[in-house]
Parts: sequence; C-alpha cells; structure tokens
Amino acid sequence: MTAKALVVLSGGQDSTTCLYWAIREFGAENVSSVTFDYGQRHRIELDCVRELSALTGIENRVLPIDTFAAIGGDALTDSKIAVCGEVTEKTGLPNTFVAGRNVIFLSYAAAFAYQRGIDNIVTGVAQTDYSGYPDCREETIKALEKTLNLGMDSEFKIHTPLMHLSKRETVELADKLGAMPAMAMTHTCYNGQRPPCGACPSCELRARGFAEAGIEDPLLTAS
Amino acid sequence: MTAKALVVLSGGQDSTTCLYWAIREFGAENVSSVTFDYGQRHRIELDCVRELSALTGIENRVLPIDTFAAIGGDALTDSKIAVCGEVTEKTGLPNTFVAGRNVIFLSYAAAFAYQRGIDNIVTGVAQTDYSGYPDCREETIKALEKTLNLGMDSEFKIHTPLMHLSKRETVELADKLGAMPAMAMTHTCYNGQRPPCGACPSCELRARGFAEAGIEDPLLTAS
Repeated sequence: MTAKALVVLSGGQDSTTCLYWAIREFGAENVSSVTFDYGQRHRIELDCVRELSALTGIENRVLPIDTFAAIGGDALTDSKIAVCGEVTEKTGLPNTFVAGRNVIFLSYAAAFAYQRGIDNIVTGVAQTDYSGYPDCREETIKALEKTLNLGMDSEFKIHTPLMHLSKRETVELADKLGAMPAMAMTHTCYNGQRPPCGACPSCELRARGFAEAGIEDPLLTAS
Repeated sequence: MTAKALVVLSGGQDSTTCLYWAIREFGAENVSSVTFDYGQRHRIELDCVRELSALTGIENRVLPIDTFAAIGGDALTDSKIAVCGEVTEKTGLPNTFVAGRNVIFLSYAAAFAYQRGIDNIVTGVAQTDYSGYPDCREETIKALEKTLNLGMDSEFKIHTPLMHLSKRETVELADKLGAMPAMAMTHTCYNGQRPPCGACPSCELRARGFAEAGIEDPLLTAS
C-alpha cells in the first residue's frame, strides 16, 4: 500500500513549506491537506489556502471549528500560553484564543486521516523559534502521537520537518523544495494586510528569515 | 488553593454518576460541568443536562462542536471504532461519528479548565464494558493526560472513577453517592425515547446493571 500523507495547511509560510516537503516525500498523488476555519480574524488565510491548492493541485478540505470561539469568548484573561508556529503569527485573537489548540488541530487531522486510510500527518510546528509555546514542542507532539495511536488503534506518524529549523533554515528548505512561487501566496502579517504591513512582529520575523537566507521574499515582489 | 474539578457531563448514567462522585471528592462548591453539543441526534441529552444542573445546582456550560459532523459527513464507511461509554449508548450517529472523539472532548475540557484554573477533569469512560473502544482505555487516558500537561504546561489530573467498574458496580456506586434521584433524569435509550424503549442494546445494558445491583431504575419509575 502506498503511504499517504495529510498536511495541516494554514496558508502560512511554515505549513506551505511542509506541503512541498510532503510532496517530495510521498509524491503529489499521495498528499492532501486540511485547513481549519476556526473564526480566524484574517479570513485572507483561507484565500491563501485556496490559491495554494490551485497552484499545487493538492486537494484541500476546510473543516469548521466553532468551539474555540465559544471557549475563548468566555474567560479570556490568561495569555500565558499562545498557539504556535504560523498560527501565532497570524492571530492575536483574544476571542478565539485557546490553550493547547494545536493538540486539537492535530487530533482532528488524525480523525480525518483515519477515515481516509492516511497514516502520515504533517505539521509545521517548530520549537526553535517558538520555545514559549508548549504545544509545539517535540515532546508534546510525541506524546500526542502516542495518544492518538492508542485512542484510534492506529499507526499514525506525525511529521514535523521544521521542528528544529530556524526561520532562515525554513526559508532555505522552501527554496530547495521549489516552494518559492507558493511563498508569494502565503500569509504572515499579524495585521492581516496584503501586501504585508512589514512592521508587525510576524512580518519582521519573516523578513529576517529571508534576509538571513539571502533570498528575496516572493510575497513582497508579488505585492 | 482549593482543588476544583470539571465534569464532562453528557446527561447519561455514567457521567451523572461521575458528577456525584466529584461532588463527594471536591465539594459541590468546587465542581462545575461541561457538555458538548456536537449535533447529537437525540437532543433530549441536552434537556437531561439542564435538569441535572437544576437538581444539583452545579454550574454547566454547553460548548458547541460543529467539526464532527463536517468530518463524519464526508466519509462514513468505517464503524470499526466508535465513541465510548454513554455516548455510544445514545448515538449510533453515522453522520457525526468520529474516531477518537473522546480525545477531543477531553482536550476541549482541558482547554476550558485551563482558563478557569481547574486542575481536575472527571470523565465517565470505562474500559470494562467497552473494551472495543480504544479511546476509553486507561492507557489512552494516561497518554492523553501527559499530552495535555505537556501541551498546556499544566498539571491536570484526569479522573476516571468508573474505569474498572462493571455496570452493576456503577449502579451501586451511584446509589452510594445518593445519585438515584438524578438517575431519573438521565438518558440512555439508543432510540432517543423517554420513557426509554426498553428493547435497544443501551436500554438492555442499563437494565442489566440495575437488575444485578438489585436496585430499581428511577428512570422507569419516573416515566
């Protein structure tokens, strides 16, 4: 049986790099993606996902999540723990903030994968740049993988190709994978602007990664 | 600091027993409950929860989940794994079936508990009667507890007071805890009937538990 993979695609730089990584590892015909519509403030993310799917030809499914907003809207005083990776770059959503959200994203991805006979799940979490976010750490992902395999009697493997990469290395990997045309379609700006504002922490982090890699960000050229 | 507890309450026999267990262990003033509205076919479950909350005076919050229906509605040919415990008794919902659903319920409960400074989560899963459901097994719950603690940098304890009890022992525990008046408000029937149909597997399982315990089911007397 051919190994199939499901990429958790947010429309950001990291998960888009993972999409190309999965295509290289498993072959385009064996890759699909899933995106969560959890009421994110920047609906542009979902536009990005559509463009990326059209560009790559990789099937995408958008799944709704109304629960985060319901939880977050109730008691939202603690910002000690935020969501991780590219999700964080784009949100700053007090009304949808939920601790451990990444655990739930990956659990849904596994439930979705289970029904389609997919064993490999790919996510763009990285502990290098986001060490403050406990649900992005390798240890958490390993524990979750075990939980999901016990809970669904399955043999999922959660792949985290960016786990130990710096932003610079992620840019270099994207370049090597031929993902640069796709980078023009990704969304990073914390303020939800396109062209990006260039001044927010997310834009700055992205810019630094491209600068350190010595590569021009196609998003800026495209804008 | 006083230990606080959150009970995952479905309106069924098992989780209602757990509600009374939590009241005994933590004190009524430290207990609250959460219920998931995931599109269950039998809306009567939510009525049961309201009645139980009124009876016990324990605060309850209903959280919506629209994701299961979206996943389940897509590809629903595999019924190898079902949800566990009392949820199973009441559903048989092809359009909302999701493998590992219990993992997601408890993850949401933890996210909700996190925001309220609650460390103890109580669930009615039991591996005795439902050994076929992998996300009810003790091993799965232990792995999930570890995952949630790593992912939220927390010290949650997931309590499963019914884990190793037979249905008879669960009835005896409910009786000992003074939960019998509440049992009249619980919902079990697979066919969603109230009074219960008495013929479906869920009704039969419940009836056997009460019969073996030598206790009259208040639900039948109340009907």
